This record gives sequence, C-alpha cells and structure tokens, in this order.
Amino acid sequence: VCEIVVNYLENIGDRPVVSTVSPGYLRKLLPSSAPQTGESWSDIQADIETKIMPGITHWQHPSFFAFFPCPNSYPSILGELYSAALPGAFFNWICSPAVTELETIVLDWLAKAIGLPECYLSTGPTRGGGVIAGTASESVVVTMVAARDKYLRETVDQSLEGEEREEAMITNRCRLVALASSMAHSGTKKAAKIIGVRYREIPVRAEDSYAMTGASVRKVVEECRAKGLEPFYLTTTLGTTDTCAVDDFADIAATLAEIAPAEKPGEIWVHLDAAFAGSALLLPTIQAQIGMDTLAKFHSFDMNMHKWLVTNFDASTLWVRDRSWLVSALSSHMHVYENEGTAGGLVTDYRDWQIPLGRRFRSLKIWFVLRSYGIKGLQEYIQRGIDMGVMFANMLKSRADLFEIVTGPSFALTVFRVAAKNPSSTKELALDQRNALTRKVCEAINSSGKMWVTSTMLDARFAIRLQTAVAATEEKHVKDAFALIISATEEVLKGEVNGVVHE
Amino acid sequence: VCEIVVNYLENIGDRPVVSTVSPGYLRKLLPSSAPQTGESWSDIQADIETKIMPGITHWQHPSFFAFFPCPNSYPSILGELYSAALPGAFFNWICSPAVTELETIVLDWLAKAIGLPECYLSTGPTRGGGVIAGTASESVVVTMVAARDKYLRETVDQSLEGEEREEAMITNRCRLVALASSMAHSGTKKAAKIIGVRYREIPVRAEDSYAMTGASVRKVVEECRAKGLEPFYLTTTLGTTDTCAVDDFADIAATLAEIAPAEKPGEIWVHLDAAFAGSALLLPTIQAQIGMDTLAKFHSFDMNMHKWLVTNFDASTLWVRDRSWLVSALSSHMHVYENEGTAGGLVTDYRDWQIPLGRRFRSLKIWFVLRSYGIKGLQEYIQRGIDMGVMFANMLKSRADLFEIVTGPSFALTVFRVAAKNPSSTKELALDQRNALTRKVCEAINSSGKMWVTSTMLDARFAIRLQTAVAATEEKHVKDAFALIISATEEVLKGEVNGVVHE
Repeated sequence: VCEIVVNYLENIGDRPVVSTVSPGYLRKLLPSSAPQTGESWSDIQADIETKIMPGITHWQHPSFFAFFPCPNSYPSILGELYSAALPGAFFNWICSPAVTELETIVLDWLAKAIGLPECYLSTGPTRGGGVIAGTASESVVVTMVAARDKYLRETVDQSLEGEEREEAMITNRCRLVALASSMAHSGTKKAAKIIGVRYREIPVRAEDSYAMTGASVRKVVEECRAKGLEPFYLTTTLGTTDTCAVDDFADIAATLAEIAPAEKPGEIWVHLDAAFAGSALLLPTIQAQIGMDTLAKFHSFDMNMHKWLVTNFDASTLWVRDRSWLVSALSSHMHVYENEGTAGGLVTDYRDWQIPLGRRFRSLKIWFVLRSYGIKGLQEYIQRGIDMGVMFANMLKSRADLFEIVTGPSFALTVFRVAAKNPSSTKELALDQRNALTRKVCEAINSSGKMWVTSTMLDARFAIRLQTAVAATEEKHVKDAFALIISATEEVLKGEVNGVVHE
Repeated sequence: VCEIVVNYLENIGDRPVVSTVSPGYLRKLLPSSAPQTGESWSDIQADIETKIMPGITHWQHPSFFAFFPCPNSYPSILGELYSAALPGAFFNWICSPAVTELETIVLDWLAKAIGLPECYLSTGPTRGGGVIAGTASESVVVTMVAARDKYLRETVDQSLEGEEREEAMITNRCRLVALASSMAHSGTKKAAKIIGVRYREIPVRAEDSYAMTGASVRKVVEECRAKGLEPFYLTTTLGTTDTCAVDDFADIAATLAEIAPAEKPGEIWVHLDAAFAGSALLLPTIQAQIGMDTLAKFHSFDMNMHKWLVTNFDASTLWVRDRSWLVSALSSHMHVYENEGTAGGLVTDYRDWQIPLGRRFRSLKIWFVLRSYGIKGLQEYIQRGIDMGVMFANMLKSRADLFEIVTGPSFALTVFRVAAKNPSSTKELALDQRNALTRKVCEAINSSGKMWVTSTMLDARFAIRLQTAVAATEEKHVKDAFALIISATEEVLKGEVNGVVHE
C-alpha cells in the first residue's frame, strides 16, 4: 500500500487535475447496501483506482493553481499513519499524556519559528498557549465563544447570581456584534450565526488593496454603538481568501486602543486569521513587514499548517494570549473526566480548548514535518512558492497587451483579468464585456484539464486567481500554465472580435 | 513503517495499559525549539519508541476496560493512509466528487444496516441523509443550531424583514431552552453554552434505570413554559456515558406528540445521541428492543463508528430527517465556492452540514471497514463484546459476597461496587465507607498496570465501570480482569477489617 501511495504522488502530474465525472456517478458503480459477508482487500483495493480515482480532484497536482493548496508530505503521511495506529479519545491528559504534551511543545516550537510574541507561548508570562483545531472556521467559533464570555464577564453586574445572572447575561448578549472585513473568510459570519450573535461587515476598498484599516473599523464600531449594539469581536486577516490582502494591523490596534481600550471592561477581542499566509511568517522578511509586536495587542492567532506547511489536513494551529479565556468558556464536567492530573491542575486537558470532547493525535505529523524539513527547509520551500508567484506576475506584466493584474503577487497569489483593450481593436471594453471575456478565459483554461484555476469577483470585476504554492509545482509548471493561459486568451479574444462573446 | 504498526498492534498486550509518566515528562526530553536543519527519518522514528510510547495509554490494549473503546482495524488504518495521500479541502462537491458521493453512499449503507427509518436515507421521502462529523459533541452543536433556526423560522412573525426581523429573532432566541437528561453526555450542555441558549437538565431516577421518561420531560417542559421559556431541543440517549442507559423513546415521543405536536409551529427537535451503543443496532434483536419506528418521529440520530465499529477516530455519523434543516442554518457563501454543480442544485456541498468549511476524506475508512468485515462480521464482533459483558456480570453475581451490580450489563458495560457487607463482618457498611472501599478497589486494580477501569458516581454511590467492547479483548482477558478485581477487593477488605480504610 505504501508503494501505491508513493506511485500515486510521484506520478500525479500524469492525471487530469480536476475530476470530470457527472453528479451521481458513484452511486451507479456501487451496490445499494453494504455486503453481508466480508470482501477481500484485493477486491476493495482494485475499486480505488477504477471507482474512486475518477472522482478525485488532485490537490497535490503540480498544475493545481486553484483556491489555496492542501498539501501533504511523506513525514506528514507517516504522522497520520502512526496516529491511526494509536487512536484514543484523548480528551484528558491521562488518556495519553504524550498526545497533550507533544501538542503543547510543537505549538511552542511553531510559535517561536513564526515570530509570535512571547505571550502566545505556553511558557509565556500571560499563560498563553496553542492548540490544534480542525480548521480556521472552528478556531473562529472557539475564540468567539471565549470572547463573548470574557466580554459578558467584564460588563455584566458582578453581584448577580443564579437565574438573575443568567437573565442579565442573556439580555446583554442580545446586543453583541461580531465584526470582520468584507474580504474576511466566511467563517466569521458563520461563527456569528452559530453562536447566535449579530454580525456586521467592515467595508474595504480597492485603493487600500482590500485591506481593512483602523478608520473603517472605527466607523462601523461607532455606527453599532449609536444603535445600542456592542462590538465584542473582530476578525483581522493576514492573507484574505480572494486576494491575500493583509489588514493594517498597527492601524487597527491603534484605533482600538482609543475606542475600546484594554484597560477598560469590554475591550474588543481581536482574532488574527492567517489561515493560508501565516506559514509565510517563517520568513524573517515577512515578519518584519507585518510587525509582529502588534500581535501582542491581539487576543488570538490562527493559521492552517494544512494550507501551506506540507502537513495533512487537518492541522489548524490556534494560539491565545491567555488560555484561561478558552477554558472558562468551554470547560465541561462529568465524573468520568476526573483524574489526579486534572485535579492537581498540573496538566492541560485540551477538551476545554475546543468544541469536541475527543481528539486525534495530530501533533505527531507536525513534529515529523518540523523535524524532517527543519526551519530552513521550510523557509526555502515557502520562499520558492512566493518567488514563483512573482515570476508569474512578471510574465503577466510582460503581456500587458493581454492582461491586467488586479492584485498581487501577494504570498504566491496573483489575481488578474483580461486587459482593458482587446489588442486587435482600438475601443475600450465595457465592464460587462471584460467580465465575460475573463470568465471565458477561465473556463477555457480549466476545460483543458491540464491545470485548474478559480476566480473571484472584486468590485463587480470578475478576475482569475492563481496561486503557485503547491509543493509539487515547479517553475516549468508555471511557465506551461502561462503558455496555456495565453493561448486560451488569444482564442477567446479572437472569438470576441468576431462578435461571439457577450455577457 | 507498516510492519512497525502491525508489530505494535499484535503485541500491544505486553505493554502497560495506562501511561505512568509524570506531568511535564516530555518537555524534559525534547529541545525547546524546532531544529534549523532537517533530521533523518531514522532519528525521528527512534524517538517514537523511546519518547512517545512511554506517554501513551493504549486504547487498543485487550485489558482496556475504561471509558468507552476507541478502536481501529487494519482496513480503517488503510483508509486513513489513503486519505492522507489524497488530502484536499473538500468543502464542495467539485473539490473531489468521490469524497462527497462516497460519504452519502456509505452513510445510506450504514443507516440501512442499523435499521434507521427510511426518512434518514438520502434517497428517502423526506430528503434526509447522513454526514460524517468529527464527534458526537459536534453533531449536537450542528443539530442544535439547525433546531434553533427551524424553531425561530416557525415562530417569528413571517412578515418582518431586515433589521426588524433580526431584532425579533434575537428577542425570541433569549427564551429558548435546550434540554437533556442529567445522564446525557456533557456535549449538550456545552453546545447550549456555545450557541448561547439556556440549558435545563431533566432528572432521571435509579428506579427507571437512569432512563429519561416522558413524564420527566413533560414536567421540565411545563416548568420552563411557566417561566416564559421555550424548550426547542431535547437530547435523548441510547447508551448513556455512565451506565449505558436507554431513554424511553416511545414514551418520550408520545409525550411530545401531546405537548409539542409536530403539526404546530415550534415543535421540539429530538436528537438521539447513540454515540457508543448505536453500533449495537446492527443486531436485529437490539433494533427490536428499541423499536426503530419511533425514531421516525425524532429529527436527528448520531453514533460514533469510532467508539465500537473498528473505525479510526474521527467518524461520528449523523443523520437528519430533512437535510434542508442543516443547510438553511449553516450555509455560507463566497465567490470562490461557486461552481456549476452547486449552482445546478445537483450536488451536495457538505460544508453546509457542519461547522468547519473544509473536511477530510473520512468515508474511505468506513467503506473499507463495512466491506472488509461485512455486516455479518460486524454483527458477530458486536455480539461478542455484549456477551463478554454478560459473562462479566455473571462472574460478579457469582461473588455476591464481594460485589453488587449497580447497573447492567448493558451494551458490554457493567457498573458495580463492593457489597453492602464485608464478608468477614456482620455489620452493614455506611454509604461513605462503601464508597471509600470501592474507590480503593478501583485504585488497586489500576495501580497494577495490568488493566484499566474508570469510575462513576450514581446518586452519591461511587461505582466502577467496566466495558468489554475493545476489539482485542477476549474471554481470557475478562477472566484475568475478574481474578485481579477479586484479589484487589479481598486485599482492600482485609485492610478495612483492620480499620485502615476510611473516607
């Protein structure tokens, strides 16, 4: 089986990137019930290539330029294999001390490597620490629940007790608002829905490169307060989904210090969602650009190792400045959870840092990856993805007759669309026409089956996203992709001249 | 590596069950930062046996009688291995059609195998269907959010729009109450905390074998309503954590038909948490005992294949009677999620059935397990675990001089304590003394290192829980365990006669 996995990964480039099956293809191929008696492994295994593989979109393919990557690596796969050999519910330290302790240690390692301020370390002065969540969305839910509880603890009359206190908490809860920029990941809006608080979007502008600013935060906070609502949580982003924009952290921190100072009860919890681009903080140059000191004023930081750092999904690494914020919001008790270690307060019980009770042994793969590559190895790998993004953007610039860059290159992601003028024509294209042409180009590229890109819509401008951060992607794949994009574009523009393309 | 995994699992009985390390053991063994340059795999691998294994509690050990099991199996491990080779974010159908379609199919297979009413099938008349969640706790959050939205949709004035509607929803939300029995898993109380609704416990009684009854539900619902609160969600349990009790589903359904009829807006959503014992529904005898028809009146059903059905954590299988309940509460939108399949409504996008956006390819391991064992193979395996539980209970009964069974055997779980009288004495033991003695016995058993049991507290009675459902457990291990329990008990009672043991 290990050989099959190696063969698959080493020859993945020979497969079409995106599955071309039709909806419902698999039901036609499988029986309608489970077999009564067991089948041999060889029969089962044969079905993987014939029935499953046609329905797989290959995220490890070197010409996968869509979304963000979702990598693996041999050390990470081995981590999953060992984890599968050693399952347990692991809600308590005693359920397997190594599972908890390795998690705390490798999250300290990673926090140091990406330059997080000391307050996020488990050994830091504010009793912070990290935990492995499934996804960035779960980290938003968890921190938003903690933020809500912290806010209400600070603002509800401390003298109330029992049902009176419950009543006051619930009344105040009705006024709470979670905030995020209009470019933030959908996870914040969904988290607000889940935990039952209001949600308001903070507009961002093209002239700010789609980054959220202090002024835009101030405006929305003031609007909310004027209506009697109370903002308590703000998601900021390092590397937004659409364009990899970076919010203006220093400006936002300075604004919040004025309008919701930490010294007063009811400060606004700031979460930093660095799901994809957080991995780039391994590079000192990026740390310097971001200004890591500002993060000490925020409350939580999350990145997905499973988006860039060659670690299997799921490995979303979340740090908080004070772990008691999570524990006091999420702890639960049953007699069966009791044990000496917990009672003595000497150990971490990660069940109180997350939504689920049980958990997998996910720190193993992180440990294997960090040790196998070393920090330098990972830095080189991340830099390579960024450099290929710059190379791709330069190729686009060299054909300014055909393309316009809308944003980037930013962390290996470039967003572009067809140029304002069709080179074989003198008139400027209307927005609708340009959108229709760019969409046609996008479809033509993808229908080749040789590469995959996804698209976005920015201020009503349809644009193509292309990221060069997949581990298997090399310069030659980016060059091949660009050649394909040119020929597709030329083909589409030829059609346009002949009057074929209209929105 | 595969060989190491096989060796580990085949010889697991030679290891101590529970780790005996002290808190903080691992930090002393590892460097304080990740290495700068990569290390060889052989160096890394060597650390697993020397540094990780001492901190592992072996859940696959044949003498692991604690909590509930958390099994694996070779087909399941292979499923995890393939899944690790094929990672992706899989939030959409097009992200890999096979991932979505296999999940729908194997959940239909499993629903049929455990006798769920047709309404829970993806092909059923009410457009139900199944989804793989991480844990039973997550399934409770997801269904509670769906239930809240459904309830508010039905009860809030339909003519309101925009902020007025938001206001009305929020006002009504303040009155909502989630319910579960005092023996339900802590996940329901935690979910209520997370989603921000009130929580009330429904008392259960020893004379009902700790099962929740219709009368107890009615009483609490009426109390809530008398205070202006509105119960909207009820967790019922098949196999409670402490004693594997089974709530009286038919009685509860009949009561709810009176006090919260489905025909009227604002019915109470009933979730059935069968996390551990749901696997036993593979046996037709158990299905008949439960009366599966009643489940058609409930709204959702969840069981953890990772608790009994030889499938690696995590594999919590959740079914709903109408999938639109989940989608309308949890759907989110970004331009990058768009694709033809989704737009055409032909496909399932499982991101809208769960908290996270991305997901792993978890249906593979379920497919491998169902096919490798076959339904009959799994039935025999489940029956064996139950039979060993009966055998153990009979052994306890044969030594009524030493032990009293508090509950069970129920689904492989028996709960017991020391007998009311010390055999070498004539006086009855006081509750405190009996608790102290039982606790001593529990500690003595576990300190042997040869087996592991956990305990519970039932109406102030301390008792030992012992389950016989671990895949590697055979009759001989149960007999050895009983011999050890007897000698530990005799030792403790001897101490008691000498006046050593007091609470």
